[in-house]
Amino acid sequence: MDLISDLRGAIGAERVLTAAADCAPYLTDWRRRYTGTARAVVLPASTAEVATVVTRCARERVAVVPQGGNTGLVGGATPDDSGTAIVLSTRRMSRIRALDCANQTITVEAGCVLQQIQDAARDRDLLFPLSLAAEGSCTIGGNLSTNAGGTQVLRYGNTRDLTLGLEVVLADGQVWDGLRGLRKDNTGYDLKQLFIGAEGTLGVICAATLRLFPAPRATITALAAAASLEQMVALLARVGRAGGPALTAFEVMSASSLRLLAAEHPELRQPFAAVPPWTVLVELSDHDGEAHAIDLLERTLGAALEVGAIDDVAVARSGADSRAMWQLRESIPEAQTRAGGNVKHDVSLTVSAIPAFVASTDARLRAEFDWIEPITFGHLGDGNLHYNIGVARRDALPRLQAEQVRINRIVHDAVHAAGGSISAEHGLGQLKRDDIVRYKSSLEMETMRAIKRALDPFGIMNPGKVL
Amino acid sequence: MDLISDLRGAIGAERVLTAAADCAPYLTDWRRRYTGTARAVVLPASTAEVATVVTRCARERVAVVPQGGNTGLVGGATPDDSGTAIVLSTRRMSRIRALDCANQTITVEAGCVLQQIQDAARDRDLLFPLSLAAEGSCTIGGNLSTNAGGTQVLRYGNTRDLTLGLEVVLADGQVWDGLRGLRKDNTGYDLKQLFIGAEGTLGVICAATLRLFPAPRATITALAAAASLEQMVALLARVGRAGGPALTAFEVMSASSLRLLAAEHPELRQPFAAVPPWTVLVELSDHDGEAHAIDLLERTLGAALEVGAIDDVAVARSGADSRAMWQLRESIPEAQTRAGGNVKHDVSLTVSAIPAFVASTDARLRAEFDWIEPITFGHLGDGNLHYNIGVARRDALPRLQAEQVRINRIVHDAVHAAGGSISAEHGLGQLKRDDIVRYKSSLEMETMRAIKRALDPFGIMNPGKVL
Repeated sequence: MDLISDLRGAIGAERVLTAAADCAPYLTDWRRRYTGTARAVVLPASTAEVATVVTRCARERVAVVPQGGNTGLVGGATPDDSGTAIVLSTRRMSRIRALDCANQTITVEAGCVLQQIQDAARDRDLLFPLSLAAEGSCTIGGNLSTNAGGTQVLRYGNTRDLTLGLEVVLADGQVWDGLRGLRKDNTGYDLKQLFIGAEGTLGVICAATLRLFPAPRATITALAAAASLEQMVALLARVGRAGGPALTAFEVMSASSLRLLAAEHPELRQPFAAVPPWTVLVELSDHDGEAHAIDLLERTLGAALEVGAIDDVAVARSGADSRAMWQLRESIPEAQTRAGGNVKHDVSLTVSAIPAFVASTDARLRAEFDWIEPITFGHLGDGNLHYNIGVARRDALPRLQAEQVRINRIVHDAVHAAGGSISAEHGLGQLKRDDIVRYKSSLEMETMRAIKRALDPFGIMNPGKVL
Repeated sequence: MDLISDLRGAIGAERVLTAAADCAPYLTDWRRRYTGTARAVVLPASTAEVATVVTRCARERVAVVPQGGNTGLVGGATPDDSGTAIVLSTRRMSRIRALDCANQTITVEAGCVLQQIQDAARDRDLLFPLSLAAEGSCTIGGNLSTNAGGTQVLRYGNTRDLTLGLEVVLADGQVWDGLRGLRKDNTGYDLKQLFIGAEGTLGVICAATLRLFPAPRATITALAAAASLEQMVALLARVGRAGGPALTAFEVMSASSLRLLAAEHPELRQPFAAVPPWTVLVELSDHDGEAHAIDLLERTLGAALEVGAIDDVAVARSGADSRAMWQLRESIPEAQTRAGGNVKHDVSLTVSAIPAFVASTDARLRAEFDWIEPITFGHLGDGNLHYNIGVARRDALPRLQAEQVRINRIVHDAVHAAGGSISAEHGLGQLKRDDIVRYKSSLEMETMRAIKRALDPFGIMNPGKVL
């Protein structure tokens, strides 16, 4: 019996798509940079069915490309164009299996949409803090496989830090039950760490037990203006001392980012009369309540203003005010799209290295390409910048397109020279698979390959990604 | 040239100990349960020297047993009695290489004593939160290799969660430079996770870049009394809602623990007139200050008292008061030693499973051994209990000794049945190496062995431990 008939018999004919129109949504990535082909798209509804699919693929050495919400930014869930792979979508595995309030954990299947998990936690007055732009459509399986970051990493860490247990179908189809809800477990190698962030190249994550937190009583933001990134780095330390773990976001935006918003989103209220060189969104999550958070922000940022550490400040008066401030920050990517595109870099550095990196890389790029405009924004508290290169005038867009590879190279070389990472939160996928070889030591690459060979000796799990 | 002469030539004769008296301190573990022999004890002073030692050992297939402060509790750093291994002590590698205040990171060598790192952070008004009983003599290399837990895990996580980068000498002597200070880096497999908690079986951790935090302005504790562990679990949720991340410890102590303290440490002030069934130490780390913390504890625990959720409460009036409360909790292990020993269990469960586990396991043990007395205490907030079995009367000590293996088996079987871990924070070492095979699936054991083979194909790294 051929593989497709076999799979249809095993998990149901309607779960094995082969018609072009049915398969199409699974074969192109969200940003439409990658399109592949596949022998079939399968939609198993349980871990046992995933095991069935992978066992059969392993037997015939057929590649398996796991896919969640298909919102990834690096082509990590799109098959190649050989047409030989099976795309394994986890969308039908979307059950919340358990929510343990006393243990503050939730156990979810890989196909759960992130927002569904946030909502389930909120219903019990708990918080699942992972939060990112795609939360309405990305799945937790994808978040785990890319070790997603987002806007709350400063306080709660990346997806890895939120994960206590995993259930994984290994490359030979066996099910590893590591679905524990324990905060301490030192009984050998922590295998789950291998699958988190592996972008589906070592196995298929089918379920996870995740940490929850008491929900804060209020979340309040402020915007502060300063002349330099050095001042923003100093402000981060100042606000951190004052707020400690209540500080849950510290998001910088360059003047070019705010000017772009003014042009493309004139409906959004700009915080300051004149656009300052740098603006930061500071968020406090407070267990005392709104008044306490507002008071703490006013005192801390007021003192900073008084000594000239910042130039201006606006503290939100309410949760609604705070959401409006977040809207500024969150509208930058859309504004960039409206402006005709840009060359994106998702980079991280030590916080202390960021001011010099931005100054020197801006200068280096401007010297070579006098028509560019860096749109720099992101999670300064995590050392993670979205250092995206746009154009000063729209008629330079074709040149930007043409110089994309050179711009990438200049930026990534600078990141590497400063000890940073060329993929802070998006992963490698297909997009950065070749680049990374330039920056990682051959020893590290070879050690990664040794792990890959140990866990996936026939190389069927998501080939052509990461390694 | 033989290996010893070779090593002497390479790192200096005085760094290669072979005389019995010189080697003795490195050949017996801290609890004096394990004694081994070794061809030599070597004391390299740098990562390059560690690489030299491991390269030469690898060439001759000689086992390497890494050792830090030799304070481990499971015999993980003691060689076997074959006399063929080299003990590699990291004690001479105790330099703090860098402290980056803006990035809130510290880069340290493996032989740094934990307290040295805490002090270096404190000097810059920062906090390195890892804290445990052996902090005056354990080394960070050992903490990393055992993924040490301690008293602040509830808020800051285990050693793994505090680690951003590692420098490791691999089993063939190559140096992997993964010493990054990045909070986000999704560029392939997160190799450092493999070495953390591996107890030296995959390589020698030589240095680490660790996270620091803003130091809280005040740390204040309270003691609360309740009739049951169920009430304590409910209180944990209540205090968590009120304090959020300010809640940094939630440590329970059974009545038997406090009675033992009264007998063995009569100098310590008991908090309540009559010893309650359960007492909890609650700690808040507050960025507002002492008054805010005291007020929050009084309000939260006062409200709990009012509705009968707890039976009594004492809030510390100062940092000194708080330290006295901690002294109660921290004196329990010493009191147990004075009382003539006990059968220790370092177990973890989901927080929600703990009350039923303690009730049923107490009953099961008492039914079989009517002369025992469980001394139960530990980190309830992390689901981690030190479920130590002592005796009701001293004359039963020989029976306790004789029944140790059966008691272990009953407790660990119960932990496993409840989905828990038989080693929450101490690791496996030699002590639990055979036990773990009973509880981990053969698939998980085989996957661990596959990793071991991939990274240490000749099996020279700390053989006889973990796997």
